[in-house]
Amino acid sequence: MNESTNTGPSTPRVRVKRLPDRGKYDRETIEAILDEGFICHVGFNTEHGPAVIPTAYGRDGGDLIIHGSAASRMLRDLAGGIDVCVTVTLVDGVVLARSAFHHSINYRSVVIYGRASVIAEKAEKAKALEILTEHIIRGRWKDVRPPTDKELKGTTVLRVPLAEASAKVRVGPPKDDEEDYSLPIWAGVLPLRTVTGAPIADERNLPEAAIPEYLQT
Amino acid sequence: MNESTNTGPSTPRVRVKRLPDRGKYDRETIEAILDEGFICHVGFNTEHGPAVIPTAYGRDGGDLIIHGSAASRMLRDLAGGIDVCVTVTLVDGVVLARSAFHHSINYRSVVIYGRASVIAEKAEKAKALEILTEHIIRGRWKDVRPPTDKELKGTTVLRVPLAEASAKVRVGPPKDDEEDYSLPIWAGVLPLRTVTGAPIADERNLPEAAIPEYLQT
Repeated sequence: MNESTNTGPSTPRVRVKRLPDRGKYDRETIEAILDEGFICHVGFNTEHGPAVIPTAYGRDGGDLIIHGSAASRMLRDLAGGIDVCVTVTLVDGVVLARSAFHHSINYRSVVIYGRASVIAEKAEKAKALEILTEHIIRGRWKDVRPPTDKELKGTTVLRVPLAEASAKVRVGPPKDDEEDYSLPIWAGVLPLRTVTGAPIADERNLPEAAIPEYLQT
Repeated sequence: MNESTNTGPSTPRVRVKRLPDRGKYDRETIEAILDEGFICHVGFNTEHGPAVIPTAYGRDGGDLIIHGSAASRMLRDLAGGIDVCVTVTLVDGVVLARSAFHHSINYRSVVIYGRASVIAEKAEKAKALEILTEHIIRGRWKDVRPPTDKELKGTTVLRVPLAEASAKVRVGPPKDDEEDYSLPIWAGVLPLRTVTGAPIADERNLPEAAIPEYLQT
């Protein structure tokens, strides 16, 4: 473990306990994973027990930005300052070992513990929505009809600080028990990645609505 | 809403509250989503607050199967019968609207509420691990060195019943405010999908270890 790039966990709860070699606590690793993904899973307690809800996110420096309807139960709960855990997972491949036991997944994940805070001020809120939109499709914001005051009021935007975050990463080939390497079983990695397909234009696009450069591949 | 294929939620907590038109409760929709994915996010309470951990899963009829080291904190906690929420999310595309406000994601998700139960009996446990492995790579189980008794003992395998599950699905083009359709802004969907790359053979494969048919594309 490279101590120069892998600092320790910021608090005990964020420490990776299982397979601690996979734990990474440096900001660079954490931010790179967050910047590659755009869907997180938000975990919080409700009166009915734990809930895990997928939602889009962006990153504003040291904060994750999430948003939703002001009428959403999740957004209302989180805006109240309850404990939250936000997890982002990128799946890079399936690891096929010689033994069933050592099959695994190559992945990069970030787990963030903390509490959300509401972005109430109008300009800051609009900026956070711009950051979120640009996180998902860079270049989009300048093209779109910006939010109205009514839309801003109907949207709750939250920051979740990255102060208590850890990454967990598995890369590379299977790790079999030494005696299993003599078995004539194919082992290796099946890589997985997310790709974009050809953009599907809305039927109601005006003739002069050209496809934007950020969608051209 | 087609009542013949979309029955109601099994319990109140599983009802989709935000955008209820997106909620689906029929077993066919739920199982199709679960069978396409293989990574879930497991939410549960710890002494430090909520936690959300990604893990692989399989499906055995009406149960989700998850597993992990018997030493894992998550597996130990869940094996104790605490409340859990398991969420599976498939992301199908980014929805680009004319307004910032109506940007969205096309996705299919399943949220399961319940409690896990431990699969203790040896043969049932081995079968559940086979189901999990086959869920991720169909055809793999017959090729691998099966689990030893020691490996089985070191693995905790859990069932999470699908009795309280709901799906949420967004498909199709953006839905802009009527007046925004006159704006000359390109709108539509950028499809996303997960693809496999060329398999990467382990350097220590024996010469006679041919690449299996289920990895050939």
